[in-house]
Amino acid sequence: MNVLWVFAHPEPRSLNGSLRDFAVARLEAAGHEVRQSDLYAMRWKAVADGDDFSDHVEGERLVYATASFKGFTSGTQTPDISAEQDKLKWADAIIIQFPLWWFSVPAILKGWFDRVLAAGWAYRVPDPTKAGRTLRYGDGSLKGKRGLLITSVGGSATSLGPRGAGGDIHDHLFPVNYGVLWFTGVAPLPAHVIYNANRVSPEGYREIERGLALRLDGLFTDAPIPYRTQNGGDYDDDLALKPGLEGDSRGFAMRLRPET
Amino acid sequence: MNVLWVFAHPEPRSLNGSLRDFAVARLEAAGHEVRQSDLYAMRWKAVADGDDFSDHVEGERLVYATASFKGFTSGTQTPDISAEQDKLKWADAIIIQFPLWWFSVPAILKGWFDRVLAAGWAYRVPDPTKAGRTLRYGDGSLKGKRGLLITSVGGSATSLGPRGAGGDIHDHLFPVNYGVLWFTGVAPLPAHVIYNANRVSPEGYREIERGLALRLDGLFTDAPIPYRTQNGGDYDDDLALKPGLEGDSRGFAMRLRPET
Repeated sequence: MNVLWVFAHPEPRSLNGSLRDFAVARLEAAGHEVRQSDLYAMRWKAVADGDDFSDHVEGERLVYATASFKGFTSGTQTPDISAEQDKLKWADAIIIQFPLWWFSVPAILKGWFDRVLAAGWAYRVPDPTKAGRTLRYGDGSLKGKRGLLITSVGGSATSLGPRGAGGDIHDHLFPVNYGVLWFTGVAPLPAHVIYNANRVSPEGYREIERGLALRLDGLFTDAPIPYRTQNGGDYDDDLALKPGLEGDSRGFAMRLRPET
Repeated sequence: MNVLWVFAHPEPRSLNGSLRDFAVARLEAAGHEVRQSDLYAMRWKAVADGDDFSDHVEGERLVYATASFKGFTSGTQTPDISAEQDKLKWADAIIIQFPLWWFSVPAILKGWFDRVLAAGWAYRVPDPTKAGRTLRYGDGSLKGKRGLLITSVGGSATSLGPRGAGGDIHDHLFPVNYGVLWFTGVAPLPAHVIYNANRVSPEGYREIERGLALRLDGLFTDAPIPYRTQNGGDYDDDLALKPGLEGDSRGFAMRLRPET
């Protein structure tokens, strides 16, 4: 299968860099083809602005989503954007690896989402079955692909757990798993979190590799997060969850299908 | 009072730009002093890397948090970082205005968090009362300041509400409100969300101005979100919420003090 590995760490000689090298080798040994987007090494342009479009005139009013739609559909987007879209189209699975900075992705990775996921492709795609609605939440253009976030955190599993002072890391990652991946149709697996990443012993490192290997081996067989789809019948015409479907869930968890 | 207005929209002639101008004038008319960080106009460098430190040698291994600590404490950080820190120190309130892109802040704003909120100041500040712990979640260096996120979204209040298909916008903003502002000690007010922002009539615009005016007038008197503090006694030594304190809350809401 085809795997796109997006790497957003400034230092290849880091824990993250070592794990990336280990993982790519393991995926290739399993017969997968891997392409990388090493954002720091590529000097990826993080900031979405008028320079992203060859026909943008300096000083002209910019509506980014409108320019993005035209850029994608008419080919006026910059080649760095097109190249990343081509990788995404090619991929069966997208793995996104980053250190957690301020409870989210580093700016360079946010800028990859902002610029690559163009209007007319990743959002603002008309829903053929429902006038005035666009395809979102499981039904977007990238449907059929799998996603996996891999992130390293300084905190412990307890402090970033369901009762932790930091907030549950999987809730912190919901805006990415659900709001970026699932929004566009990519089905994310539960994120792989590497805790206590600031101090890792050699034995600890081996254990982290073993844990990561299990996730890589399950990339195409593990169950994705069972998010509800926008058009699967659970939401009303105003996109509110129909009464009673939440069961005893609350918060983000209301967007999960009940266990069957 | 002193207000820092951080603005992260590429187009001053946008809805957001108009609201920013309206808001700054209103704050000044009320006697406040306002400084701005207009990130696009400043051409703010979004990507955190070795170039942020005058003593970083190209090709030398970079551990960003370590370099950030040294940069802040020894003055080896770049002047653009120091200038923003000075504005933050000066401010009694920080207002951060941005369009919601992919359920989070634009990359240029994420890069402002990543670069400005230095180690040794905004994080990794030793807790004088507890060996091995750092000051976080209400107890950080920026304690005493207030924060307010203002964001524009394309979706409706229903689709981004508690039962909405998009997920509750206030949960999506938790990583910023709690993980960035509250983490460093800033007490955030509930975010001000402008819905259906892609199509606004002239009368709709007046209504949006009126709604924003109310929030600006309450900037120093409205109640901040009642987050628990790390060191207020609600968490055990592993930073797990003590049994029973959650009441009937779940998810991010467990980090709120119960209503009294």
